Amino acid sequence: MNGIGLAVSTVIFALRPHPETGRPVLSIPLVRRTRAPFEGLWCLPGGWVDPAESLATSAGRTLVETTGVRPSYLEQLYTFGAPDRSPGDRVVSVVYWALVRPDQIGERPPSSKGPAFDAENVAWFVADSLGSPRGSDGLHLAFDHDAVVAYALWRLRTKVEYSAIAQGFLGSTFTLSELRQVHEAVLDRELDPANFRRQVEGSGTIVATGEHVLGGRHRPPRLYRYDTSAPLVDNGPLGELTPGEMS
Amino acid sequence: MNGIGLAVSTVIFALRPHPETGRPVLSIPLVRRTRAPFEGLWCLPGGWVDPAESLATSAGRTLVETTGVRPSYLEQLYTFGAPDRSPGDRVVSVVYWALVRPDQIGERPPSSKGPAFDAENVAWFVADSLGSPRGSDGLHLAFDHDAVVAYALWRLRTKVEYSAIAQGFLGSTFTLSELRQVHEAVLDRELDPANFRRQVEGSGTIVATGEHVLGGRHRPPRLYRYDTSAPLVDNGPLGELTPGEMS
Repeated sequence: MNGIGLAVSTVIFALRPHPETGRPVLSIPLVRRTRAPFEGLWCLPGGWVDPAESLATSAGRTLVETTGVRPSYLEQLYTFGAPDRSPGDRVVSVVYWALVRPDQIGERPPSSKGPAFDAENVAWFVADSLGSPRGSDGLHLAFDHDAVVAYALWRLRTKVEYSAIAQGFLGSTFTLSELRQVHEAVLDRELDPANFRRQVEGSGTIVATGEHVLGGRHRPPRLYRYDTSAPLVDNGPLGELTPGEMS
Repeated sequence: MNGIGLAVSTVIFALRPHPETGRPVLSIPLVRRTRAPFEGLWCLPGGWVDPAESLATSAGRTLVETTGVRPSYLEQLYTFGAPDRSPGDRVVSVVYWALVRPDQIGERPPSSKGPAFDAENVAWFVADSLGSPRGSDGLHLAFDHDAVVAYALWRLRTKVEYSAIAQGFLGSTFTLSELRQVHEAVLDRELDPANFRRQVEGSGTIVATGEHVLGGRHRPPRLYRYDTSAPLVDNGPLGELTPGEMS
């Protein structure tokens, strides 16, 4: 025991329509603080670790309690523990992250036991409006959550280039054009359709299902799925532990 | 505050001569526990987080205090927090890792203030003799440190294939043959010299210095260095935080 509070926070990424352009953009749910410190500022959903729960279970529980979002899988991102990150008592936060599809975004907690979350103090933010360096213009979050969001964005953008992580945003089958739109939204830039097709087809991570999009079009687009032998997130020996932790 | 103890542990990798074959093999220093729980078993060096220290500083301090090893850089690996990982009070451990060169392995703590570490209860172990799955034959460590070591080994072996991480084991300049020996020791398998040369020269991560190994040989081997524009470990926005944390 050393008098340090242990908390969890979660960065959730979803593709949602931009409030002005309507195009799908990378978005993150935040919670407005209703008490000190940082009262009135927005922060990542989270809370204290329950001594009886695994870290991932605490992260999932506090996420549902505060935002109603319940992803099927949380990956540990990083543990933030600078001594001055929270005023008063020392708090160390283990941060988790996940990608969610629109159908995983509930409107209130599925459990009828707890109180519904405070919907007035939860909102989705365009990811690119967050994570500004300290002291710069732009929206700033409570605690060190600007730095947490900046790191999560960097990890997501690095991973989407070399892994099957975009799968977290897609249904079980998808067209190449849908997959490209996910990559475009994550990377926040347009990609050349022909180059993109060559790269993903060459990567061996996706497989044509043999089916096409239904409809009367002359050349209906092919449907693809991810090669299930390539895991969404390869955690090596930890991979077997984490799903158990989540149960 | 939630009554959870926060600890740090560190996995240090070095290439050291195998006790039987004399060939350089991946090795890890461990500390023998001299009190309950798990008295007499070996475990990773570590200790409690000091509330006034950053996590990396606590990891570095406890590492020097217990083993005398002082690496120049520690990277955060993962936070282990299963509720049953330690008997009695709940303990969550933030695990750091580092690669060290032989010249970074001291024989006792550089500070003359603290007591010298207990050299009888510190030893280097061949990495491949560690990390056995629970219940299997082989050496087993205290707490969940078998799983921690298995994860660290997997991360190192994954990273050495696509990053400049082998640099952590080498001096500022090296021959291709020295670099290959590092990769062979990490991956624990022999590599074809011609293929290896083609791969690293094609990767753009190393640069010929224009110099050669001194000596009277007919064709003295060329010396290389890593391209310093490619960081040893790319932590994105976190990269700037970590060296400060270590000071």
